[in-house]
Amino acid sequence: MKQYLDVTDIENLPKLIDEAIALKKNPFAFETLGKHKTIGLLFFNSSLRTRLSTQKAAMQLGMHCMVMNFTSEAWTIEFEDGTVMDGGTSEHIKEAAAVVSQYCDIIAVRAFPTLTDKEKDQSEFVLNNFKKYASVPIINMESATAHPLQALADAITIMELKQTQKPKVVLSWAPHPKALPHAVANSFTKMMQKMDVDFVITHPEGYELDPEVTKKTPIMHNQKEAFKDADFIYVKNWSNFKDYGKVLNQDKSWTITNEQMSVTNNGKFMHCLPVRRNMIVADEVLDSEQSIVIQQANNRTFSAQVVLKNILEELEK
Amino acid sequence: MKQYLDVTDIENLPKLIDEAIALKKNPFAFETLGKHKTIGLLFFNSSLRTRLSTQKAAMQLGMHCMVMNFTSEAWTIEFEDGTVMDGGTSEHIKEAAAVVSQYCDIIAVRAFPTLTDKEKDQSEFVLNNFKKYASVPIINMESATAHPLQALADAITIMELKQTQKPKVVLSWAPHPKALPHAVANSFTKMMQKMDVDFVITHPEGYELDPEVTKKTPIMHNQKEAFKDADFIYVKNWSNFKDYGKVLNQDKSWTITNEQMSVTNNGKFMHCLPVRRNMIVADEVLDSEQSIVIQQANNRTFSAQVVLKNILEELEK
Amino acid sequence: MKQYLDVTDIENLPKLIDEAIALKKNPFAFETLGKHKTIGLLFFNSSLRTRLSTQKAAMQLGMHCMVMNFTSEAWTIEFEDGTVMDGGTSEHIKEAAAVVSQYCDIIAVRAFPTLTDKEKDQSEFVLNNFKKYASVPIINMESATAHPLQALADAITIMELKQTQKPKVVLSWAPHPKALPHAVANSFTKMMQKMDVDFVITHPEGYELDPEVTKKTPIMHNQKEAFKDADFIYVKNWSNFKDYGKVLNQDKSWTITNEQMSVTNNGKFMHCLPVRRNMIVADEVLDSEQSIVIQQANNRTFSAQVVLKNILEELEK
Repeated sequence: MKQYLDVTDIENLPKLIDEAIALKKNPFAFETLGKHKTIGLLFFNSSLRTRLSTQKAAMQLGMHCMVMNFTSEAWTIEFEDGTVMDGGTSEHIKEAAAVVSQYCDIIAVRAFPTLTDKEKDQSEFVLNNFKKYASVPIINMESATAHPLQALADAITIMELKQTQKPKVVLSWAPHPKALPHAVANSFTKMMQKMDVDFVITHPEGYELDPEVTKKTPIMHNQKEAFKDADFIYVKNWSNFKDYGKVLNQDKSWTITNEQMSVTNNGKFMHCLPVRRNMIVADEVLDSEQSIVIQQANNRTFSAQVVLKNILEELEK
Repeated sequence: MKQYLDVTDIENLPKLIDEAIALKKNPFAFETLGKHKTIGLLFFNSSLRTRLSTQKAAMQLGMHCMVMNFTSEAWTIEFEDGTVMDGGTSEHIKEAAAVVSQYCDIIAVRAFPTLTDKEKDQSEFVLNNFKKYASVPIINMESATAHPLQALADAITIMELKQTQKPKVVLSWAPHPKALPHAVANSFTKMMQKMDVDFVITHPEGYELDPEVTKKTPIMHNQKEAFKDADFIYVKNWSNFKDYGKVLNQDKSWTITNEQMSVTNNGKFMHCLPVRRNMIVADEVLDSEQSIVIQQANNRTFSAQVVLKNILEELEK
Repeated sequence: MKQYLDVTDIENLPKLIDEAIALKKNPFAFETLGKHKTIGLLFFNSSLRTRLSTQKAAMQLGMHCMVMNFTSEAWTIEFEDGTVMDGGTSEHIKEAAAVVSQYCDIIAVRAFPTLTDKEKDQSEFVLNNFKKYASVPIINMESATAHPLQALADAITIMELKQTQKPKVVLSWAPHPKALPHAVANSFTKMMQKMDVDFVITHPEGYELDPEVTKKTPIMHNQKEAFKDADFIYVKNWSNFKDYGKVLNQDKSWTITNEQMSVTNNGKFMHCLPVRRNMIVADEVLDSEQSIVIQQANNRTFSAQVVLKNILEELEK
């Protein structure tokens, strides 16, 4: 693995998941692989799980980890080419990415979308500029349109807990008071398309995700019908994609309650977290045994660790 | 030791102090004890001594340390049960504590009181919610009502420097322009009650601490009389407890000067720091040989280290 | 080496540069030297290169590194003696420096100038107060008037890349929209005065640096003339020194373009970064092969590492 910008960078998913599950059993099996290697974690946005799990993963591989809150601790970055930098930005991404590459063997970046400038967000201008100007492998810790470390943790979780050969997995939209990105929904969709699962998306009409992501995945506007006999219910809010970044719907009949779960096949409840209780999901579901969100969060460590392990092995070649 | 939320978690104080003093002589004696173990330091408030000394202590035990400024780097936390989270908070403490427990073997938390909502503060809603929902041991790095790592460092310092079997120790209030918590005063009081010392509290009338903390400890409103023949003068401001969180008194006759110290038994001056010069204490005292505040701050490392050591040993059982 | 506050702390520059170049070839040659030693990196201002390269350097020497954003994470510091601290500052530098010395074997500090109070800045009140009250060696990670780690990286870079015995080096002012410090220009000037180079400074009239720094170094107001046959062009903006901290000139004819570079001896373009593109330097120069800013940034690691190595060796004596 040469980078991990998107789930499309995965060459062999079943093998990767097996490796991750092996690492979970023996987290320090490769603790000399990362010796004398440094990873830089660059944050343009808040993070809890991603930050801690990636640090933990790096540590378990013997790597040295440097964390930087880019916006508050470093300089404001210019991403446009050819600009006369006489305004608010102090450093161009060309220099920033090239310089950090001098100090780090791998760079991991988190940068959320604007949710106001669709074209800019879809171009992944932060992540792709890091990719373009860095001289070391880049890992996506959630970008404008993708969260592949989360999707890999989700895949690991489903493989660990599935009871049937080909489980039914439903991705459901749920209401939220603020405009949220499409990254998690996109990457989860792409990941499910790579797996041997019966995958369905359900959301209110008009809340379609990027059609280049959903492709031929069935989309249903009747949540209850979609949930029927489902083994895994993956819930996430996203803002409108067509009327970009808008919150057009907060319909709480889409909030996941015991009633919704009752038609599933004793389905497991999944969410990437952080989750707003009693907006996205009722306490009764999140606090029940059907909820596997904590195991899912735990798998973030092994998702990050297996990606780091594969990139380190590639670096050694 | 299974946790360290309060000084009441100490099972055998003399033994713990002896261990701490032994660690001070040989800080790396247990540097393999924490191998492959991770501590998460979660800060809801500013910290200098606590942050650095706990990191140092963890490092000396071979632990891996992850520091997070929870309010600025992670998500705003909801502490109330049953809330519809449609406002400013993004993640419930139930998930946050359970998730961090996936990545850390020990969690240390700093969260100051509101000083406006007495009931909420007295309930220790942040610390106790972490305790309730985490699955790993919790260490208190100063909570709404307690600062037991500071109190343990204070106990170590007094044991190191006392000249008599049963020294006289005075806790004195001193003026300060802003409302300060009761945590340090509470924990110091509880610690002195556990030790073989002659302990007295002095403060202006109406500035009584929580009576459930002070219990039968003698309280004097005449500072000079209280200081007579004292071996250790421990100074701290706290805001009013009855008229909760108010600054009703800034009487600078309570500021510690040479005059106050003159009636002591060549008493040592102690303060947890940070200290406001010429408000809490005059330069002439803080810069004198009687001041032991720097040694006291140094003992923060061994206070944290002995607590970590005991918790790690418990984890190994 | 007992400290590194200024380039004047360098005892033997050629030897130090040789050691740095050797470390660059074998970064882990001294990885046991820093074992059980801790460095505290204290930031009063933003940093990218300095923070990451110093962390990297410390790690390569086996040191433990603790990073603190002093203004946001710790307490606001009082630097004046004798003050009644009844205002915005919570901790005096006397305690802060003495306390951090308890937890760290070496303290590195970054604190920019006010650019409004010349006398205060020239007195280096932050750095010198740390020096005065700390009990461990201090490293300057850019202070009000000096940036000696940068200057050492610059010296290493020039020694690596020079084509002639005594290259011509030009320090040129260039325009910038905001008021910038003199630290980089000062330290580069002092460093060049110690080296076997033909050194010239060029800037618009009235933009003289501190004459106690420039001493007898030739100063030219005609940039093109100064650039003639130069081997290294070191560019930096600084605000006015006489009319202290003012931006009196933004003359873009001083921006470095191919035209300016054309009269040099195929000169190398240097800048400490961050650099504002098309203000300080045109894209055509910064993106050309003449630009060595990334190699220069890379040498920051070895500049920091050789300084740390020498201080650690001194500590072992």
